[in-house]
This record gives sequence, C-alpha cells and structure tokens, in this order.
Amino acid sequence: MSDAHAARRERLSQYCSAGGADAALVTKPANVRYLTGCAPCGATLLLTRDRALLALPAELPPDDTGEHPYAAELPHLVAAPDQDTAEAAAAAATGLRVADLAVEEHDLTVTRHRAIAEQAAGVRLTDLNRAVERLRVVKDDQELAELRIAAEIGDQALGELLESILVGRTERHLAMELERRMIDHGADRAGFPVSVGTGGHSGRSDHLPTDRRVEEGDFLTVSLGAQYRGYTVCATRTFVIGAAPAPWQVELHRLVFEAQRAGREALAPGVPGGTPDLVAREVLRAGGHHEERPRPFGHGVGLEVREAPQLGPGEMGKLDNRVPVTVGPGVHLPGRGGVRIEDTLVVRPLEEGGPELLTITTKELLAL
Amino acid sequence: MSDAHAARRERLSQYCSAGGADAALVTKPANVRYLTGCAPCGATLLLTRDRALLALPAELPPDDTGEHPYAAELPHLVAAPDQDTAEAAAAAATGLRVADLAVEEHDLTVTRHRAIAEQAAGVRLTDLNRAVERLRVVKDDQELAELRIAAEIGDQALGELLESILVGRTERHLAMELERRMIDHGADRAGFPVSVGTGGHSGRSDHLPTDRRVEEGDFLTVSLGAQYRGYTVCATRTFVIGAAPAPWQVELHRLVFEAQRAGREALAPGVPGGTPDLVAREVLRAGGHHEERPRPFGHGVGLEVREAPQLGPGEMGKLDNRVPVTVGPGVHLPGRGGVRIEDTLVVRPLEEGGPELLTITTKELLAL
Repeated sequence: MSDAHAARRERLSQYCSAGGADAALVTKPANVRYLTGCAPCGATLLLTRDRALLALPAELPPDDTGEHPYAAELPHLVAAPDQDTAEAAAAAATGLRVADLAVEEHDLTVTRHRAIAEQAAGVRLTDLNRAVERLRVVKDDQELAELRIAAEIGDQALGELLESILVGRTERHLAMELERRMIDHGADRAGFPVSVGTGGHSGRSDHLPTDRRVEEGDFLTVSLGAQYRGYTVCATRTFVIGAAPAPWQVELHRLVFEAQRAGREALAPGVPGGTPDLVAREVLRAGGHHEERPRPFGHGVGLEVREAPQLGPGEMGKLDNRVPVTVGPGVHLPGRGGVRIEDTLVVRPLEEGGPELLTITTKELLAL
Repeated sequence: MSDAHAARRERLSQYCSAGGADAALVTKPANVRYLTGCAPCGATLLLTRDRALLALPAELPPDDTGEHPYAAELPHLVAAPDQDTAEAAAAAATGLRVADLAVEEHDLTVTRHRAIAEQAAGVRLTDLNRAVERLRVVKDDQELAELRIAAEIGDQALGELLESILVGRTERHLAMELERRMIDHGADRAGFPVSVGTGGHSGRSDHLPTDRRVEEGDFLTVSLGAQYRGYTVCATRTFVIGAAPAPWQVELHRLVFEAQRAGREALAPGVPGGTPDLVAREVLRAGGHHEERPRPFGHGVGLEVREAPQLGPGEMGKLDNRVPVTVGPGVHLPGRGGVRIEDTLVVRPLEEGGPELLTITTKELLAL
C-alpha cells in the first residue's frame, strides 16, 4: 500500500513544482486519505519537495501502547489541544523554509484560511486548484480492486434481501436491513444512506425512506452502495411486488432498461463525459418522458460517492481509461412511481472488452 | 413552529442591525434549520431587515404536486442547475439594495466566499461572527421538548438491548441494533455513530465498534444518542458482563460514578463552563487517575451533537439557564478497558430544582 501512496504524493509534488509552489497543504479528508492511506478525522498533510508530514489532532485517542495510532505510517506531529491541524502544519512549513504554499481553497473555510495565513507568516498562500481531485480521477489497480469488492458486497446484500418476504415491511426497515447486510459482508459502512422507495416513491433518485409499507403491485426501487476501504460504488434496481406486473410497469421498465443500456454502451475512453447521459435521455424522450430540470444520470465514484468526472448532459471533458462512473437513468411519474436502474462501470477501451460492469445484480424486472 | 422561527429570525436581524450589517447570509445547515425549521440540503437563507428569502438548490426533487417541497414555508427562490444557493441568494441581495452583508466565514470555503463576492458586486461582505451559534445556546420550550423526546428514545433503545443476550455478539452488531431500535422508536436517525466498546475497548470516548465479541467478565461501554427533529442528546453507560464483577471493576465504576455525580451537581447558571469538568477530574485524580492530554468531559448539544458552550477545563464563560450540556467523565486503562458515564442535562437554577436530567437510564453497575 505505502508504495502506491508514495507514488501519489510524488505526482502531487511534481504538479506543485510545475505550478511554482514548493509545498502543498492538504486538508480535505478524502484527499488526505488518497495520499497517505490513513483517514484520521481532522488530519492535515504537508507535502514539500522532499518530505511528507502528517499533522494529527491532539484529541485522537492514542492506542493501547500509548503511541499515536498513525505514528508508524508517516512522519507526523501532534497538534496542541484545541489547535487546528492545518495551523500546526502551516507553522511547521515556515520551519521548513517553504515560500509558496498551495492550499485547498475549496475545502478551507475563510476563518481557517486566515488562521493558516497567520501561522505561516511570510509564506505566500496560493490555491492547489483541486489538483488532488484531478489525480484521483483515473484509478490504480489497488483502487479498482477495492471498488470491485465494494460492488460485490452490495450485490450480496441485495441478493439476500430479494429472497426474503417484502410485503408489509416499511421502506425504513428494508433500508436498515440492507445497511446491516452490507456491514455483515465486510463493508466499512454504507457509502451513502440506502434509498428504498415503494409505490409512488419508486423511481426517484435520493428518496429518503419513509414508514410506507410495501404493497402488492408496487414498484420497489432500491439504491445502495457499500463502502470498502474508503471506496464506494452505487447500484440502483427496480422490482415489482406480486406475481403479475401491470402492462404500464412492464413497458416503463423496458424503456428505462433500454435507456440505461444505451448509456452504458456509450462509455469509452475519449468520449465526452456528457454523452452517456445524452444517449440515455434520448431513449427516454423517444418514449415520451423528459424532465424540465434534468439531474445528471451519472457521476464519478471513488473515495467520495460523487466525485470527478462530472457527467451531466453538457459535459464536454473526455472520459479516460480506468475511470469508474455510474450510469443511472430513471423515470418518475408523480403519484404512480417509476423505474430507475443504475450501475457502476469502469471505462475501458474496446480492445480490453469495453466498459467493465462492477454491479452485476440482474437488471431484469423481477416479480417478487 | 413558524412563530418560534420568526422570533429567532427577528433576534438575528436585531443583532445584524446593531453590528451595522443590513442583511445576513446564512449557509451553515444547522443555522438554516434553526432559523427556518426546514433543512433542505444546500439551502441558504438571506435575511434582510424586513424579509427572509430561502434559496433552494435546483436538484432538490419536487414533490408529487410538482411544487418545490419547502415552498409553503417561506418566500423562496430556486437556484439554477449547478448554481450554488449562496451565490443565488447573494445575487438577490443586490436586487434588494443590501449594502453590508454579514456572511458565515467559519462555514464558507474560500472558493465559495469568492463566488459570493462576485455575485454581490458593490456589496461589502463582513463576518456574521457565529451570531446564530450564540443565539442557539439557550434553548426555547420547543427545543427542550424535542431534546427530552430524543433522550427518551435513546433510553428505550438501550433498555431493550440490555434485556437481550450480549455474550458472543460483536461490537458492530450491538451498535447497529441500537441504531435500528432508536429509529424504530421514532428517531430521525442516530445523532452520531453508536459507540460500543468491550473488554480493552471499554471506557474510551469515540471508540469505533470492531468485530470483537462480548466475553464474560468484560466491561461494556455504550455511547449513543437519538436525533429527534434535528436535536441530539448523548448518553454513555458502562456495564459488566457476567454475574460477578471483579473488585477492580466495582472500584473503578464507583470512582467514575462519583466523578460524574460531582460534575452534574456543579451545573448551575452563572458557574464557569469549565467547572463541571474540573470537579469531575479532581475526583478521578484523587482516585489516582489523570490524563496527560485531557479531552473535555462535556459539551453543549442541540442541532449539532457538539455545539456551544464549550466545557473544557479552562472555559471561563458562564453557564446560562436552559442550556443543555453533557457531563461524561471516564477512565480508560490501556489493555484492560475502563468506565465512562455520560448524561445530558439542562442547566436550571436551584429554585427550579437544579439541573434537569434528560438521560435517565440507570447509571448503576449492572451485571448483564
């Protein structure tokens, strides 16, 4: 692991040098984790041309040996009680003769930025310009392996739920059961709150589970994703409750299935990020469905549930090889419910077999 | 509800006027909720001398009527897709001829603050100086009622768990069961991840549950808090597993119990915030236990799990009537475990009966 992290830090150092900064102060938790492999709450990483220094909060409980629990990983310092780790690291930067320090202006509050400037007197503060987020877009082998395991865990949890009795149970109970099953199968936690929508709630993205109970004839939309070693994938499936789906349900499911397939098949290195969304949306529009305020049907995943690249309809940036993204179109009919189907896939060139599907649970319209 | 929220907004308006600002831009989610009663993710409140305007994100799903789901509550605008609500509200402020706009510099990132400044050309941006956090310290009747219900929910969940078989179950399973039971009893959610520590993990604050199984003779420390209508309380209890606690366990529990009682009894209006911590710590020190880097034994609670007032050993600010706080001393012996006991209480004057205990589950050393 630590070789991979050292390589990531080396790439960031090179980026800083090229931009004229002689050090970077990394405060955003997902970025600290990406560069160090450890995720203590409130840690800050100071990265100069030739060294990495992790500033840890005083409140982090020491382990049973009395040592600070991340001591073995990287050179570190421990902030004073009530001292911000970013301030402690900024003070250390002055001791290391840093002249230009790039900070994460999209993460630091105005108050914290001012405190850093006070600690780093004489140091010029610049913006790191989301450099770490951009490094994070293309995943290495270790990251892809962890995303595959995260996907497997979600598939297992969902598979088990579908074998149980669903009628009469509430959305909230089903959501909690899925969270528990993911943790049982080895997830760190649910990567985001599981969404379960039944009846009129089905087909929505980000529906918050309610006390509505599953009834015969309902659509049931489940959206879940396990977090494994920090990495999260997303999967959404829509099923029907009872033996015989109504004709409108079969028809709507078929349409969303086609739209989602078109989106998946559009994924390839070099394709504009907005293309999968556009082709999926075109299928839905041809079927008579369009949204006035479209929300993007997909996004990048990794150490954050939603991260770069953006995949909304207007995105022109090109997709890269080894970038995991979601494709998740849906239709929601007010009062009736709807269908949403979402996968996480890794962009791969055709000669390597095309997009790699991580979330392999069936997308057929199962009648449960 | 809305009268209480209007009264809170009126107090903030008066504060702004007194400070020379003619409007406030509130972006911190807990503060938006405090002032409006609604908590849509990413909303911003613009409060001028004579009006309140809520800026809502475009991505918020409309409800089944096609209306934005918070439309009925307050005058509002909907930001453009991908537009930050704070930018949308700042642009609206220029239309309302705002000259001095107080923003939350402790919440806004540098990047967001810059974008607001660009939208609000010609408007002078100042700092709101955590004014809403300070208004939030003393709770009104509605807030105290919600905190009482949150405490009851946690007590019920813990009481049920103690009636079940514990030996052989993992810390993670016990933590998940407590979360589920709190939701079953009406909690919005767990206010923070439930902590369950057994054996060598007992007595720690903020221990993350592991796969360690409960064994005979273990101390078991459980720390939990339900969130009810946004408000969270904290309770921590330590029990022993098996029929006969060892003499060191009985002794250590008695000591922490005494320390916690001393801390609780020190709560009163006008007392310095650090006093409960100091008196509890003195009892532990007399018993031979002291920490080199002391973490505060208590903190304020409300719409955030940890909010003002601060209650660390050095805090000199005076406690007020109607302020809910936690008192939670503990001792952790490396390798052996320990005891932590924490309550949430509302500061009240002696003539009203003294501090009001919200978390009433027994603090005796139950042998389970």
